[in-house]
Parts: sequence; structure tokens; C-alpha cells
Amino acid sequence: MLDNIRVVLSHTTHPGNIGAAARAMKTMGLRRLYLINPRHYPDPQAEAMAAGADDVLRDAVLCNSIDEALQGVVFTVAMTARLRDISIEVKTPREAMPLLLQQAATQPVALLFGTEMSGLTNEEMGKAQVLVNIPAHPEFSSLNIAAAVQVMAYELVVAAQDYRPSVPEINPAPHEQVEGFFVQMEKTLFEIGFLTTQNPARLMQRLRRLYARARLEQEEINILRGILSVATEYNARLRARYQRENTKGTLEDV
Amino acid sequence: MLDNIRVVLSHTTHPGNIGAAARAMKTMGLRRLYLINPRHYPDPQAEAMAAGADDVLRDAVLCNSIDEALQGVVFTVAMTARLRDISIEVKTPREAMPLLLQQAATQPVALLFGTEMSGLTNEEMGKAQVLVNIPAHPEFSSLNIAAAVQVMAYELVVAAQDYRPSVPEINPAPHEQVEGFFVQMEKTLFEIGFLTTQNPARLMQRLRRLYARARLEQEEINILRGILSVATEYNARLRARYQRENTKGTLEDV
Repeated sequence: MLDNIRVVLSHTTHPGNIGAAARAMKTMGLRRLYLINPRHYPDPQAEAMAAGADDVLRDAVLCNSIDEALQGVVFTVAMTARLRDISIEVKTPREAMPLLLQQAATQPVALLFGTEMSGLTNEEMGKAQVLVNIPAHPEFSSLNIAAAVQVMAYELVVAAQDYRPSVPEINPAPHEQVEGFFVQMEKTLFEIGFLTTQNPARLMQRLRRLYARARLEQEEINILRGILSVATEYNARLRARYQRENTKGTLEDV
Repeated sequence: MLDNIRVVLSHTTHPGNIGAAARAMKTMGLRRLYLINPRHYPDPQAEAMAAGADDVLRDAVLCNSIDEALQGVVFTVAMTARLRDISIEVKTPREAMPLLLQQAATQPVALLFGTEMSGLTNEEMGKAQVLVNIPAHPEFSSLNIAAAVQVMAYELVVAAQDYRPSVPEINPAPHEQVEGFFVQMEKTLFEIGFLTTQNPARLMQRLRRLYARARLEQEEINILRGILSVATEYNARLRARYQRENTKGTLEDV
């Protein structure tokens, strides 16, 4: 079950933190480390801080993008130190880890950590189904990234001790299918004139929020993408007719 | 409440770990750091790893012994990575932290961490009322010391959110009074001939276990020390009489 859990570190600045995170993972039985464009890697500092977890470092998967790191993943939990206007649900570690385990029983899942200075971008958080905030002191709430990995991995192990398998309610689609759906949706919404160039990102975040809550299945994505295709075709017919009518005079009806 | 909680690091080898521990403490609102004979301190590495927690480092109390660090403390939780023959009760962090908080509501308490290589000595663990083991992977169970501080501090904060004040069942005596009792007891047990020089430490550990479970109150310590005093006096009288009788002939009765 723990082998289905990826720890994904995005744009980590200090290689020592990568090593310390690897050690934190291994103490709790986690082994799948994914690194999105780390600033310095490989690096002797990473190895020094890994202590006996050099195998986790050696097997780490280097990625160029978050989508590459989340390939095949059906459930992503992203860390945030902020509790302000966020577009998806924020849970405590204790609430979120049983959900992650439940999915990890059958399919790959991910725990996503941002950079030391600024955490995850809104775009990165938008790729997650659940956000987690580690409760901390309001005046000094920034945990070291390896310390955050340690707390989450610890909560996973505690949750695993209480884990009872159950029939999953849904069979969620992997990350890349959900992303493919969002790409087509954004394109379609532009084509049909629903989205304009004014801040489409914000509206897309709201839509992501809705679908993150729903946890889309593959079948559902097929249906939604079918609807988008038809809408585009309808729009294309509409435009063609409009242009045809326009050459004659005015657009009467569609 | 959190201001009554001391984090005590015994004989820490790497100053970077002291700094990282200070940061972990501060993220969870803990401020009282006690250092027993750290190998290198103060040290620039400690400051670098403390990030914004330099105030915690600056106020750290340097001690020459564990008894100095636990002066005035009524409840001590000691960390152990080992689960083998241990003389006092071992709890999980989740079980132990509510107990620690309960005591911290009114009096100083301590969380005790050992060295990087070998943890706490048996003697140090004997000073605690409760041992805590952070659940970890059996093949690689050694958490970095700052990571362990982070997990425990996190569990404290989570426990604090659920904390409801209650009337304490007992009013435990401070550390130095309990230690004074053990010193007198060991001395007495030698004097009355119960303890011999063969491994008294092991027997004293068993007795510590018993009294750690009981959580001695000051009044009870006074009673027990009174008993020990009387026993010694009795023994002194016995010896005097024996020597007196022996000059005459044999010891008949006492």
C-alpha cells in the first residue's frame, strides 16, 4: 500500500532538504520520491542528509513538470501553509491520510510539497483533489520541508495501523485524463465564447474545484469530453452558418 | 500551557540538529529549549538551521546534567526508538501528549530526547514517568532528532486543540524530590543489606518503574522517606546490638 504513495517535491531549492525528506520517508516505510526540477540534484548535501536512505535517493524519479510527476496518479494531496482564499478543500493531516490510504490500496497517489520559500503555486494546487494544512503557530508557521514530510509520513503510518479495506465508492480517473479533460474544457469554453481572455485562470480554478470535489471517473470524463466535442461542433456549425448568413445579410436565428 | 513544556536535548552531537529542533519547536509554539552538554554550542550551524527561531536558541538553557534540566519538572516523557526490555511504560505520541498537556496546565513538564547515535541511556530513561516510541518502519526506524521533535510538537498542538481542563487526580512531586527519594532508598537498601554490589542498577530500575507508574506526590515521598529513615535507624540499632552481643558471645535475637 505504501508503495503506491509518491512523495513529490516541486522545485526544491536546498539539496539537503531532499536528503532529509528521503530519510523522513524511509523511517515511515515510504520509498517513491519524485523531484520536479530541483535546483541542485544530485548533490553531496542530499546524500549526507539522507543518512541511511540513500536507496530512496538513488531511486528518485526526476521530472520536468508536475504533470509528469503525477502521471497515473488518481488522488493528490497538496500541502499548503496558507489558509486564505483557496479553491479546493483544506483538511488536516489526520483527516486526509485515511483518504489517501484508501486510494493507495489499489492505485498510485501523491503527496505534493512546494518550494521552501513560497510553497506550491496556485496552478500546482489546482492539480490536487485535497489540500492539507499542518496545524502550526500562526506567527511562525513555516515548517522545514523535510519536517513536513516527516509529519505527513508519520500520520500515514498511524492511519495505516487503523486501516480497514473497504469497497471504494468511486473509481477515479488518473491525473493525465483529468488534465486532458481540463485542457479540452478550457479550449472549448474559449471557442464557444464563454471564456474571454480576461482572467480565464480564475474561472478554471473554480471549475477545477468543482471537479476535484466530485472525483471524476474515467467513464464520466468520456461523457463530459463528448459533450465538449458536440458543443464545439455545434459552435463550428453556428459560426459557419453565421458567416453564410452574413454574406447575405443578417443573422436571424440559429 | 505550552510555556510549561521543556524540550530537553541530551548530549546532542550535531549543532545543526539543535537549530532544526528549535525551528520545529517554534512552528508549534514551543519556546523552552534545554541543552544538556551539547558537543558544539553555540555554533553557526545551529543558527543557520534555526531559520527564524533564533529567539528559541538564544533563550536555550545550558545544563550540565539531566537533573539540572529537569529541576522543578513534575512529568517527563522520554523518547525511545527501542521497544526491547524497558523498565517503564511505552506509549504512542498520541496517547502520551494529552497526559503531558494535562500536567503542563499547572506545572513544568519535559520532553526528553537522547543523542543522535544511541538515544537516551537507561539511566536517563529511568528519570521519566512515560516513554514514547514514534511508530516507524522496523528496518529503518531512526528519525532525525529534529524530525522527532517536529512530530512530538505537532502531536502536542493537535492534542491542545482537543484539550479540556480537568481536575488533576494527583499532585505529583517535582523531579528533584523524586530523585532525592531514590537516592535515599538506594542508600538504605544497601545499609539494610537488601541490595548488594551485584547489579543494584537493575533492581533500582525496577523500583523506578513501580514509582513512575504510581506518580508520587510530595506527601507520599515524605512518608516513604520517613519509613526509610526508621529502617536505617532500626538497622543501626540492630548492628549496634549485634556487635554488643558478639563481644559477649552469640546473637540470640533482635
